[in-house]
Amino acid sequence: MNERVSVIVASNRGPVTFEPDANGELEARRGAGGLVTALTGALHEAEGLWVSAAMSDGDRAAARAAPGGVIDMRAHGAAYRLRFLDIPADTYDGYYNGISNGVLWFAHHYLWDAVRAPSFGESDLRAWDDYVAVNQRFAEVLAEEGGRQPGRPVYLVQDYHLALVPRMLRELAPESLIAHFSHTPIAGPTYLRILPTVMHDGLLRGMLGADVLGFHSQTWAENFLMSSRSLPGVRADLARSRIGVDGRQVLVRTHPISVDARALRESATEPGARRRRREINRRRGNQRLILRVDRLELSKNIVRGFQAYELFLRRVPSWRGRVSFLALLSPSRMELDAYRAYAEECLAEAERINRELGEPAWSPIDIHVQDDYVGAVAAYGLYDVLMVNPVIDGMNLVAMEGPLLNRRHGVLVLSRNAGAFGRLGRYAVPVNPFDIGEMATALETALDMPLGERQRRARGLSRLVLANPPERWVGGQLEDLERARRRRTSAQTS
Amino acid sequence: MNERVSVIVASNRGPVTFEPDANGELEARRGAGGLVTALTGALHEAEGLWVSAAMSDGDRAAARAAPGGVIDMRAHGAAYRLRFLDIPADTYDGYYNGISNGVLWFAHHYLWDAVRAPSFGESDLRAWDDYVAVNQRFAEVLAEEGGRQPGRPVYLVQDYHLALVPRMLRELAPESLIAHFSHTPIAGPTYLRILPTVMHDGLLRGMLGADVLGFHSQTWAENFLMSSRSLPGVRADLARSRIGVDGRQVLVRTHPISVDARALRESATEPGARRRRREINRRRGNQRLILRVDRLELSKNIVRGFQAYELFLRRVPSWRGRVSFLALLSPSRMELDAYRAYAEECLAEAERINRELGEPAWSPIDIHVQDDYVGAVAAYGLYDVLMVNPVIDGMNLVAMEGPLLNRRHGVLVLSRNAGAFGRLGRYAVPVNPFDIGEMATALETALDMPLGERQRRARGLSRLVLANPPERWVGGQLEDLERARRRRTSAQTS
Repeated sequence: MNERVSVIVASNRGPVTFEPDANGELEARRGAGGLVTALTGALHEAEGLWVSAAMSDGDRAAARAAPGGVIDMRAHGAAYRLRFLDIPADTYDGYYNGISNGVLWFAHHYLWDAVRAPSFGESDLRAWDDYVAVNQRFAEVLAEEGGRQPGRPVYLVQDYHLALVPRMLRELAPESLIAHFSHTPIAGPTYLRILPTVMHDGLLRGMLGADVLGFHSQTWAENFLMSSRSLPGVRADLARSRIGVDGRQVLVRTHPISVDARALRESATEPGARRRRREINRRRGNQRLILRVDRLELSKNIVRGFQAYELFLRRVPSWRGRVSFLALLSPSRMELDAYRAYAEECLAEAERINRELGEPAWSPIDIHVQDDYVGAVAAYGLYDVLMVNPVIDGMNLVAMEGPLLNRRHGVLVLSRNAGAFGRLGRYAVPVNPFDIGEMATALETALDMPLGERQRRARGLSRLVLANPPERWVGGQLEDLERARRRRTSAQTS
Repeated sequence: MNERVSVIVASNRGPVTFEPDANGELEARRGAGGLVTALTGALHEAEGLWVSAAMSDGDRAAARAAPGGVIDMRAHGAAYRLRFLDIPADTYDGYYNGISNGVLWFAHHYLWDAVRAPSFGESDLRAWDDYVAVNQRFAEVLAEEGGRQPGRPVYLVQDYHLALVPRMLRELAPESLIAHFSHTPIAGPTYLRILPTVMHDGLLRGMLGADVLGFHSQTWAENFLMSSRSLPGVRADLARSRIGVDGRQVLVRTHPISVDARALRESATEPGARRRRREINRRRGNQRLILRVDRLELSKNIVRGFQAYELFLRRVPSWRGRVSFLALLSPSRMELDAYRAYAEECLAEAERINRELGEPAWSPIDIHVQDDYVGAVAAYGLYDVLMVNPVIDGMNLVAMEGPLLNRRHGVLVLSRNAGAFGRLGRYAVPVNPFDIGEMATALETALDMPLGERQRRARGLSRLVLANPPERWVGGQLEDLERARRRRTSAQTS
């Protein structure tokens, strides 16, 4: 007995943000990435609702102008509705910079120097109150909107920003079907205990309010299971990937996300991308090209990547002048001291290597720090080696975008600690991101790889990415929820 | 059908070290701690053998003077034999400073700043070769000595220095009964993967050569089970705490070690300790005393401990001048840069706090950096609060020694991340070692605690420590091995 469902997505950042155009009219600008594509597609089909925090004055203005604060996106070419939450700036700062990015991101990516940091104090507890408040606000609006939908509401709650929402929503609307998806890694139990108890327990119990918890990789799912196991009254069954809590069952599932191949390929054929491709090609001359595309993010391991390249050039000097390393880095979280410091370290390390190994007609590293999606799309077509060596990464979409657009049978050097490794590892040259020697060897292996082998791997990568379109990622979650609903119904009637 | 067993212990450092006395005669000096007591007791009963690396010229001289290189300890008042391995200094350096303390200790204690360190390179791989060579040497001597024993040899291999020995010994003497015990924490699977693959897999498979793996806490045992689970061909059963590998079963067991109460109490009554106790008492006047006793070790969390005390004094200024913090710190691993830097940070932080909060007649922190076991034993008698706040700790014996010798119903402030917390936590004031605010509150709670409550807790702690004498720790391991033997025999005959 199927009934109609209404899909409601919740995420910190919305699928579009509104900015005034040249005429002062509010225009919706779409975010990039497979997540938005996948979820927009699902909402489109279900004529669903997306709930997000307002990011700009344009967002707030669009919300004010909409009846009941709900923006009908049909006016912007998509059949779903959008509701922005207007959160006071200082509360948002505590929730977003203080906890989400300043604490939870660090925990899940193992980014602390535990001998010295973190040191939690009163300001962190105040920021935690903000985090709780914003999550509560989301839960209230989700419950309220759920009651207004034509069908039974099905919630897709996104990421670590909203980890408390499932439990809060469950309390407000106990019969809800709730999925929560984590796009980050999940710290194992020992590391997660770095968090103050109120955060550690709050986070885990918050997520356990869901019917289904989704992760990009089995490793993250297992880390969550093991962490939950330490909470009183929680039974985590590792073999069946299932958790019993408060008389309910929580499914723990792995759904690796992928990229939107069609949109990506379209963007690569646009005039801007073509022009940039010609520029990069001219500049590289007949050198081989190693590429990295990353946010300037602590977890991306940019400095060790340069050091591995340096070691490679010192070990095999015959490659000097015949290869170039193009690093396209977009600024990220520059509000946080640690990110500014890391950005400077990346630049300084590239400069040092260029100074020590460069020659009048050749510079080993070409580093660009700016938001430059078009440049990245252009460069993807041209690399011989794509270096994706994060310390740890929930998934990593660069490892998928590159192979999809590359035209030179380029080789993917991929960290074993990226969620993407589970899917793509067998066609990549695997590296331990802490092992400079292994990464240097991987660059040499990749550059020396015979054409046939490169073709085989490049085809394999692009086939794997295409085989897992973003719709499947959402579809899998909706199926999980449907299964949860059936199990719940049969438990109630038996 | 029991047969006679011969116990053979292997550890990096021996139970005694030989130094020439005033007459130039070699004298055996015993190491301190429950481990030596427990194992010496077991060997004494079984007239067993202890195999260790020679630490001094005295050790080498004693070995040369002994027939077959095996020292009969009856000449030194103990009925066991001792064999020292003479390892070349540079090999020992790679094995001990390079890998054991420079890599494995950091991994198991989560001490890296993963954004920047470690960066593995060729020198680490050379050090790994040394580590393999020393482990191989141990395994060969153990196999050789095992063949010479009157009974069936039973091996008790100690700690992370000798993680490869079980597998190597199993290859040389497949029927051996081998236990390995880890005195450190064990990193969870995500963190352990920081190690280069050759080390990561080598370490896990090395330990899996044992019949029984022992840990101080359930958390470390589970981390090992989860890490092993990732290896091809290994089946880890978390619920039964058992691992299947190479057609064998490996038991994973928890045996928390304790301290030797009698020896400790004796040392507290010696004249030197009495004198020091009087000195400390005079100095404290009518102030309350917070004590910490630690190696100057990255994992001990000394800086955050001072900062928590500072926060407490700022929050509750009425305590200024009425309390003093005595920090007895013994230098440790000063060959490693990271340890020297940390020692300086500890001193600088204490100085800063004394400068900012001190008054002409009162200094908040009294810090001593020296090897001073007698001073520690004396101070244990006198504390009102014992601060044991490691970032992470395999067990932590200070948390046991203190309550056993304290005479003031002192309160134990204990990190939830110490292995000892599993046994003692319910009588301690628990703290998250990363949470300055919680640690400051814990100090206040401990100092304000009513006498009756302090008495109840102090009695509880001392009862728990006494209830678990070191003999039981060894006994449990020997029982595990006997169980493994029976299971193996019945598997062979069935």
